[in-house]
Amino acid sequence: MEMSSKLLEKAVAEISLLPGIGKRTALRLALHLLKQPLEQTQHLSNALLRLREDIRFCTICHNISDTEVCEICSNALRDASVICVVEDVRDVMAIENTGLFKGLYHVLGGKISPIDGVGPSQLTIVPLVERVKQGNVKELIFALSSTMEGDTTNFYIYKQIKDYNIVTSAIARGIGVGDELEFADEVTLGRSIMHRVPFETSLRDI
Amino acid sequence: MEMSSKLLEKAVAEISLLPGIGKRTALRLALHLLKQPLEQTQHLSNALLRLREDIRFCTICHNISDTEVCEICSNALRDASVICVVEDVRDVMAIENTGLFKGLYHVLGGKISPIDGVGPSQLTIVPLVERVKQGNVKELIFALSSTMEGDTTNFYIYKQIKDYNIVTSAIARGIGVGDELEFADEVTLGRSIMHRVPFETSLRDI
Ligand SMILES: [Zn+2]
Ligand SMILES: [Zn+2]
Repeated sequence: MEMSSKLLEKAVAEISLLPGIGKRTALRLALHLLKQPLEQTQHLSNALLRLREDIRFCTICHNISDTEVCEICSNALRDASVICVVEDVRDVMAIENTGLFKGLYHVLGGKISPIDGVGPSQLTIVPLVERVKQGNVKELIFALSSTMEGDTTNFYIYKQIKDYNIVTSAIARGIGVGDELEFADEVTLGRSIMHRVPFETSLRDI
Repeated sequence: MEMSSKLLEKAVAEISLLPGIGKRTALRLALHLLKQPLEQTQHLSNALLRLREDIRFCTICHNISDTEVCEICSNALRDASVICVVEDVRDVMAIENTGLFKGLYHVLGGKISPIDGVGPSQLTIVPLVERVKQGNVKELIFALSSTMEGDTTNFYIYKQIKDYNIVTSAIARGIGVGDELEFADEVTLGRSIMHRVPFETSLRDI
């Protein structure tokens, strides 16, 4: 696409480096900003730069944080003996939104995936094992996505912490609350039958 | 969505002001930038800011330009007697991509649309009439989208320039080259029959 302005061309090129945004969309976004007040672009530009330059990761759980230790890890009301292991920051947000989990997290930063070139050393597995070694942890909950990579990662971590005498668990998989059985995939339906819970337990959620 | 970082929250809020980008996508984009080298965010941030702060519009045709007069208007090889009137910058790019038009442009910046609160004064109609008045223009080609707003805008401009003794034309509407007749909408098919061209003329395009 031949453009009449190098400034526009450069902006479109940079925007279209973002995942899922093609040249056409990038152009539409750039032209949109040109029609908005100068302040909007200044705020956007500044917010991106500050995010990238000033962001920190909690030294304990590796969640995104504005402080050295995140609000969750530094909250004395939370149960530091339970750690929920997740892939990324969005998983923390999703679980926090349920309001049901009161333990701490550990953000791995991904899954072991030889195809994508992600090995254990690129994830925060060593610090996780360190947390377990310190002796205050009683339970580790694996909440990774249930893919081969997720299972591999779970098992890799499991092998390293199994001698420390802690409980390990995995989040329940099953038919979504309110979902129709007939539309569930076979694997999910199969798991939800195999991992059925006592009826009295199921009532507690209502 | 509760976030563990104000920096992240601010960035997501600013990104999701962009059209067609919701909170979820904005979060995905922000987290993506965090995984990329610092330079990528610096370049993006800088490109957006420079685009918005330094962009200029050609003083003749109102196309986006890095200079006072754009490359098209300042190109002596182009035919300054023919002006193609378009809605926005993307239309200029689209027509330039065909490589067939050698005249100049006039970018209106939109269409007259009472519903959207766009009146003639918000468009570059006065400068267009000025260009015609100067006497060097022989033909005005209307290339606005064929909607009620496009037709209204064409007619509004037409009334103001019709006494200056220039040719006015509109781009041809019809079945797209290579398109099947059976899939064309009735209005387009009707127009392409009513505005049929001599067979010899149609051969020239092959
Ligand atoms: Zn933390
Ligand atoms: Zn120009």
